[in-house]
Amino acid sequence: MRNLCMKVSYEGTAYSGFQTQPRARTVQAEIEQALSKITGEPIVIVSSGRTDAGVHAHGQVFNFLTKSRMELKRWCLAVNNILPRDIVVVAVKEVPLDFHARKAASRKTYRYTINNYRYVDVFSSPFQYHHPTPLNVEAMQEAIGCLIGEHDFTSFCSARSTKQSHVRMIYKAKLEAVKLEHRSDAGQLLYFDITGNGFLYHMVRIIAGTLLSIGEGKLSSADMKRILLARDRGLAGPTAAAQGLSLWEVSYDDVQF
Amino acid sequence: MRNLCMKVSYEGTAYSGFQTQPRARTVQAEIEQALSKITGEPIVIVSSGRTDAGVHAHGQVFNFLTKSRMELKRWCLAVNNILPRDIVVVAVKEVPLDFHARKAASRKTYRYTINNYRYVDVFSSPFQYHHPTPLNVEAMQEAIGCLIGEHDFTSFCSARSTKQSHVRMIYKAKLEAVKLEHRSDAGQLLYFDITGNGFLYHMVRIIAGTLLSIGEGKLSSADMKRILLARDRGLAGPTAAAQGLSLWEVSYDDVQF
Repeated sequence: MRNLCMKVSYEGTAYSGFQTQPRARTVQAEIEQALSKITGEPIVIVSSGRTDAGVHAHGQVFNFLTKSRMELKRWCLAVNNILPRDIVVVAVKEVPLDFHARKAASRKTYRYTINNYRYVDVFSSPFQYHHPTPLNVEAMQEAIGCLIGEHDFTSFCSARSTKQSHVRMIYKAKLEAVKLEHRSDAGQLLYFDITGNGFLYHMVRIIAGTLLSIGEGKLSSADMKRILLARDRGLAGPTAAAQGLSLWEVSYDDVQF
Repeated sequence: MRNLCMKVSYEGTAYSGFQTQPRARTVQAEIEQALSKITGEPIVIVSSGRTDAGVHAHGQVFNFLTKSRMELKRWCLAVNNILPRDIVVVAVKEVPLDFHARKAASRKTYRYTINNYRYVDVFSSPFQYHHPTPLNVEAMQEAIGCLIGEHDFTSFCSARSTKQSHVRMIYKAKLEAVKLEHRSDAGQLLYFDITGNGFLYHMVRIIAGTLLSIGEGKLSSADMKRILLARDRGLAGPTAAAQGLSLWEVSYDDVQF
């Protein structure tokens, strides 16, 4: 028996999220079908965690057990030949039999992308949240600092969370503004990148929605800390749209892609 | 009567090219329907030139005559509300009544994008030609210089061209290689940008196809000049796939966006 670990990119637009559900098209089901076809075994994969409907991944990670002896370098091409065009396996590693892609994950990075230009960008629209009116980027950047460190993120967690503890460690968080080339007016892309040891249900999208409220002037940058300390979902901003979110990278102490 | 000039982005994937044809979905027909609906007039647009089926535009330009007195700043929003999601008008100007978007165009820039990474990029695949195996980028870059200046481009023009003269002026041409972030192996994106006073049928795609043949080692960088001078389409490389090509910018001496 071998334990294989793969890194996969996908566009989430056409899927009801990552995790297999009855009567729904999911990324997990597509991958399991492809791997089962290649190996002739009923493959079940373990991912680093689910992503919601419409959320994308630049670097999701999963592992699975197989008896197949196919050479490591052949796997990506074989599986990509079967997968639909919006799911692409980009790396494969053989890992110890006890490796578990969710339990072993030490850090995850998410990126939330905002197109802050007057018009939709036809080249990137499935991967961006479009916010056509001006945003106070400096206020948004000021608000981010208080998220770093270990905190109870109840305020930034869906009320439907079933987790016992809402304490998570955030290692890095930044908002970068990139001016759009070839646009004579004030178009910019905003990339919000956040790295932590784990994220609660809707956590990144609620933080992004709160940052957008700050950018719009509905909340001040100082409100972020006040909301964080209050542990009250009702005080934070709305859950930002799924299409702007991408699971960017999953890090492991013992596996590197 | 007013003459309005618009700049438009589109993803060409779903269209049989820009120019209206019977029984085909075209970008021009979508725009004309939207403008006719807004104005209540039968609008006919004049573009800077057609683009082929599957070719995209970052900044195509067109103009049209209308009796509508709608304020200039309202047009983009009004037309984008009607247009499908893959066509977005990004700017509008009022121009002199004798302005003609094709005849007045002084320069055009096209971009051909090559994903030279082992795997498809799910985030950008509709806008890239995917070439998974290594390319000799230095040889490709060396080959480009001889294209600059005024030349007869018969070798890089479809045999179906009906133009009397194949002489065109190329002002700029460059190939830029951008390393892919977060990829541990040698992934890179190649952007081939070319600016000229006009382009022949399939010209950019045949030049791109010839550059790819040079990158693959099937032709040498010195062959580019030999092929150019020979005025023989049969010597050049294949016509590169439409999906990698985008009409990037159209420049006018008197109108600026």
